[in-house]
Amino acid sequence: MHATRPVRQAEAYFGLYVRHERVATTLYLNEQDEKYMRIALSLAETGKGRTSPNPIVGAVIVLDDQIVGFGAHLKAGKPHAEVHALHMAAQEAKGSTLYVTLEPCAHYGKTPPCADAVIAAGVSRVVVAVEDPFSAVAGQGIARMREAGLQVDVGCLSEEAEKQNAPFLHYARTGLPFVTLKIAATLDGMIATNEGDSFYVTNEQSRTLVHTLRDEVDAVCVGVNTVLQDNPHLTVRLRQGGRNPVRVIVDTHLKTPLDANVLSEEAPTFIFCAKEASPEQERLLTQKGATIVRVEAVDGGIDLRAVMNYLSSRGLLHVLVEGGANIAGSLLQEQLVNRVWMFHAPKILGQGKSAIAFQTAQNRMSDAILLTDIEHEMLGDDWLTIGTPIYPSRIL
Amino acid sequence: MHATRPVRQAEAYFGLYVRHERVATTLYLNEQDEKYMRIALSLAETGKGRTSPNPIVGAVIVLDDQIVGFGAHLKAGKPHAEVHALHMAAQEAKGSTLYVTLEPCAHYGKTPPCADAVIAAGVSRVVVAVEDPFSAVAGQGIARMREAGLQVDVGCLSEEAEKQNAPFLHYARTGLPFVTLKIAATLDGMIATNEGDSFYVTNEQSRTLVHTLRDEVDAVCVGVNTVLQDNPHLTVRLRQGGRNPVRVIVDTHLKTPLDANVLSEEAPTFIFCAKEASPEQERLLTQKGATIVRVEAVDGGIDLRAVMNYLSSRGLLHVLVEGGANIAGSLLQEQLVNRVWMFHAPKILGQGKSAIAFQTAQNRMSDAILLTDIEHEMLGDDWLTIGTPIYPSRIL
Repeated sequence: MHATRPVRQAEAYFGLYVRHERVATTLYLNEQDEKYMRIALSLAETGKGRTSPNPIVGAVIVLDDQIVGFGAHLKAGKPHAEVHALHMAAQEAKGSTLYVTLEPCAHYGKTPPCADAVIAAGVSRVVVAVEDPFSAVAGQGIARMREAGLQVDVGCLSEEAEKQNAPFLHYARTGLPFVTLKIAATLDGMIATNEGDSFYVTNEQSRTLVHTLRDEVDAVCVGVNTVLQDNPHLTVRLRQGGRNPVRVIVDTHLKTPLDANVLSEEAPTFIFCAKEASPEQERLLTQKGATIVRVEAVDGGIDLRAVMNYLSSRGLLHVLVEGGANIAGSLLQEQLVNRVWMFHAPKILGQGKSAIAFQTAQNRMSDAILLTDIEHEMLGDDWLTIGTPIYPSRIL
Repeated sequence: MHATRPVRQAEAYFGLYVRHERVATTLYLNEQDEKYMRIALSLAETGKGRTSPNPIVGAVIVLDDQIVGFGAHLKAGKPHAEVHALHMAAQEAKGSTLYVTLEPCAHYGKTPPCADAVIAAGVSRVVVAVEDPFSAVAGQGIARMREAGLQVDVGCLSEEAEKQNAPFLHYARTGLPFVTLKIAATLDGMIATNEGDSFYVTNEQSRTLVHTLRDEVDAVCVGVNTVLQDNPHLTVRLRQGGRNPVRVIVDTHLKTPLDANVLSEEAPTFIFCAKEASPEQERLLTQKGATIVRVEAVDGGIDLRAVMNYLSSRGLLHVLVEGGANIAGSLLQEQLVNRVWMFHAPKILGQGKSAIAFQTAQNRMSDAILLTDIEHEMLGDDWLTIGTPIYPSRIL
């Protein structure tokens, strides 16, 4: 059996089709392998939202069907998961099997190559969930270990691992950040009344989940209309603490008020505007601590692809976009959204502001953007639908 | 314990608050009672969609903890549930307990009073789920049986029984038919593209469920725009057959085309129009078999309350409204909708026709119509949300 990546699956996850080389290998996977890889995957979760621009990774070392070491990558600049696990295993790494959720690195970054450490420790077999598409690795870690005589099996629980590291993998393959679009709407798709009132669409349980999500992403982004209308903090308010993501405002004409809550000192704030926006307003906003970034203007606003490229260049690989309707619509039309989180509350407004505003319309229902890989959850009387957009062939 | 009806519950079911007298009684209910009443409730389901203008009713007769008879009301004009059950029990009715989902009748309708038959058969105890609010009964069946020395306990599984007979009970209390509003929309609340294309919003599983629902209602109603746009048959297409409901078109200016599918011979069709609509068009539509009913015009169309009153006067107690947006909006604003069935498909249009169009807007999100008593179900990747509207105190 060849470890061909399930391309259609990955396509579904990432919205864009990315052709890239895979290391073909014979798999000797069994139930035990899945069991230990699942543990490695759950260990990886401990670093979620804290490792960018690095991936999250978990590792488990097994000798004679017993776990002798494990680890996770917890923060960029800190040791990789394999290193923690090898340290814990010490002498017992000799002859062991290493389960790791991402290919061990082969390059000198902030830490030395993990592939070398794995070889040096005497590990016999390595089971890898997903090959690392990052150009400095890209199969070289696997190749180096094989050259040293280790058995390396690739593809164990690759689907779960792809999903878990979606932001990092998407960035490594496309250069773009992974964009999660979050919307909170009434049953009939309204996010606010005509007058702009949206307090509150969803219930407390839904709103708390949004704060959990903010805690796991690198940046949270809204349009300036949302700032003007709702004056949000865009910070994380959770009983367990959490850390604030970078705040990103799409504000073509620099209308963000100087006393806006998004300018609080709780987190850094980037404001993206058109090249023509007022230098005086830039000066004032910069004094308030914001970083102003000028990008090209396009029809109806600024170039959102340029915004996203800038964010990933700053190591922000997972961007949560919380609206409003124009940003949501433009990002979807630009095919920049990788995952949609749609909260619905059992309410009917009958008139109001629609959740998603495209600048152009589709003629046929069959040309709608389809969500796949659906997750669905009740949150009290609200419900959450999570899905990955499949963009229609007819570009909008 | 007094058998006070759970008023807030019923209020939730029926949208309107209806004050009416209840028979206070001491309850001697136990687990066995609930067990047998559940059987009676499931028997009642066999008549669903076939008994209007009568209620659906199930009955079980128990002697020495053994079922000795049961029955259901299957069609208007045919025997009541109690009569079937008494017939099956024959001599064993003597000293038995009768479980019946609705108060036995006390009047001569198409059949003689059931209360008399129950007394004559020698039943010792009667457990009733819900009192019959129909003016010719309204507690008199219960009173008559008590006068004859029977023990009568009221309120066993009353919530389930209220829900099961919601159309009949709502009509008996208000004179209006029970209106179920069905909507099929995209994730962002669109029912069609700007050009009107809606083939298809939802998947086959969802669409089949709509046919099952049509099979259970007395009438199915759409606005003329839906006729012009989609040219639906509004009939029941199910593998198991089913029977067609009466078709109702709200068509202020009699624009229904003479070759419209809703004029097929498969089912009767009522077309409601304004008093001013063309007599010539009425003549042509009547020739095609439709019944034209003229009602008062109101802002933006015709008086929908008059339409509903007419339908209930014709024995159509459960009306399924399938859109479009204007009818849905007007019925909700008139507080005439008793239950909402909202199908969502995981699709995004970004522009298109909204599901529900109110003629006036609410300023505050807190004035939205709230759905309660939520049922939620996945249908493949679609999902269905069923709820009962609680109308805001600020009338629209």
